[in-house]
Amino acid sequence: MNKRKFILGIDGGGSKCRARLVSSEGDLLGVGMAGSANPLEGVDHSINAIMKCTLEAVSAAGLSKAILKQTSVGLGLAGIILPDRHKALKDWKHPFKEIFMTRDQHIACLGAHGGADGAVIITGTGSCGLSNVKGNITEYGGHGFPLGDKGGGAWMGLKALQHSLRAENNLGRQTIIGDMLHEWFKVPDSASIISRIARAQPAEYAKLAPVVFAAAEQNDDVALEIIQDGAAYICRMAREILKTSPPRLSLLGGLGPRMHQWLDKEVSSHIQDPLDNAEVGAILFARQCMAGSSSRAKGKQKT
Amino acid sequence: MNKRKFILGIDGGGSKCRARLVSSEGDLLGVGMAGSANPLEGVDHSINAIMKCTLEAVSAAGLSKAILKQTSVGLGLAGIILPDRHKALKDWKHPFKEIFMTRDQHIACLGAHGGADGAVIITGTGSCGLSNVKGNITEYGGHGFPLGDKGGGAWMGLKALQHSLRAENNLGRQTIIGDMLHEWFKVPDSASIISRIARAQPAEYAKLAPVVFAAAEQNDDVALEIIQDGAAYICRMAREILKTSPPRLSLLGGLGPRMHQWLDKEVSSHIQDPLDNAEVGAILFARQCMAGSSSRAKGKQKT
Repeated sequence: MNKRKFILGIDGGGSKCRARLVSSEGDLLGVGMAGSANPLEGVDHSINAIMKCTLEAVSAAGLSKAILKQTSVGLGLAGIILPDRHKALKDWKHPFKEIFMTRDQHIACLGAHGGADGAVIITGTGSCGLSNVKGNITEYGGHGFPLGDKGGGAWMGLKALQHSLRAENNLGRQTIIGDMLHEWFKVPDSASIISRIARAQPAEYAKLAPVVFAAAEQNDDVALEIIQDGAAYICRMAREILKTSPPRLSLLGGLGPRMHQWLDKEVSSHIQDPLDNAEVGAILFARQCMAGSSSRAKGKQKT
Repeated sequence: MNKRKFILGIDGGGSKCRARLVSSEGDLLGVGMAGSANPLEGVDHSINAIMKCTLEAVSAAGLSKAILKQTSVGLGLAGIILPDRHKALKDWKHPFKEIFMTRDQHIACLGAHGGADGAVIITGTGSCGLSNVKGNITEYGGHGFPLGDKGGGAWMGLKALQHSLRAENNLGRQTIIGDMLHEWFKVPDSASIISRIARAQPAEYAKLAPVVFAAAEQNDDVALEIIQDGAAYICRMAREILKTSPPRLSLLGGLGPRMHQWLDKEVSSHIQDPLDNAEVGAILFARQCMAGSSSRAKGKQKT
């Protein structure tokens, strides 16, 4: 038992943190899930989420946390490029054998294309893109809510609320989306909506995205404008990504399937289904890093 | 000394909280200032700011806090219309003789027009309007950042950052405002900007508004678009307000003077200088409430 080796893939996203534990032979042993791992909420917040889903996966596998010392971790984490967050995470006294960190988009891309070259656009709570071609990783958009993430669910929810609040004072167009949002919140007035959501996390705003799509289906002008504006941005991102000639391009994230139909045909024709999820990508990433360090180690022995 | 009566006017805004202590005869005794009193940050936060500037004013007057029991307070507070905040503030065991609360725009309006009927548009960190005509108070916009407050400084700062971050990935137009923002932040890359401002208060975003105006003076397309969009919204608000036939209309707030020149001529022609500030308005409000309750009390004695 002491000699067994494990690999843990962790997808630390802005809304959810997911872990997947496999044996060194690749057999699935257990999975776990926790809330947001976004380092914008503080590095401790990320570490708590990472450890929660890790221990859940270990427990689901019927193992004890003693195995963490035999476990190599691939971690894809939202917001890790922020310099101070990155440093704080590097200094983390983690309980694992080793940990390899990268952006969450990177492991999503590896998962979507079986570890091979490719590109992804992710529209969930936020929006971002990544191309991974011939060793060159290029990122697109992201930047978090409310600074960036145009076309993502939180951006949509905020836009819709802004419009409907303005409309109440006749400072904007009054369309059905205002009533639909009130109905969704189940509150009588806008003051209650503001009270509830003003300082909320992006994931709370993103819950309104389905309301925006539903209003668009009823030809609501405001909803149509929001979605078309978001889709135009995603298309622009796709065109930039396609300039890097990725062998495959996948559209991921919770809003992916809904957003797909709003993209223009030319962009849409390039999109292929992902092969696997981001946790699998995190495991592929860990294996690539382990192979890299072992070949470097072997190289050293030779000299 | 025990028989002296005092009136304290407090302007509890989203960025600053200001107090003005006068004698019952109206002589200025002392002023005080504290940071944001925005109840969106929690009611305790507001109460702390209110008490800090109150004690500063009392101390500046060379008095002790024992006088608070002889002090009637007029308080104009940002976000007070939010139902749960309002309730929590009503339950506050305050140290004053009595306290009369209203929206911060209301006291600003009373101050601007010497306690008489009139209307105001406030563009500072946020943006909002209020008309006070023949006992009818109507509010326009507001709703806080990022849900509302279009045309305010925080909204401008966010818009400018969104544009310049997008431009870096060629997902938006690259104009000089991007360089100007980097220079302002004195950081080498966008990741550092995001790290610093992503979860910042509206007042932090509003500090970028002068950069937007400076870029507009250099004919930066993005800056011009942001300011024109904001100004169009403020003009729309002004036209709605003018429908209530206020005898006077003033444009207040830190961005007021800069925004004025971007408004269309017809709207601009209606704008008059304010007579006094919001703390004076808060004192006028307290006096109106005291006169109201004393006439009600007298009325009761008669029956």
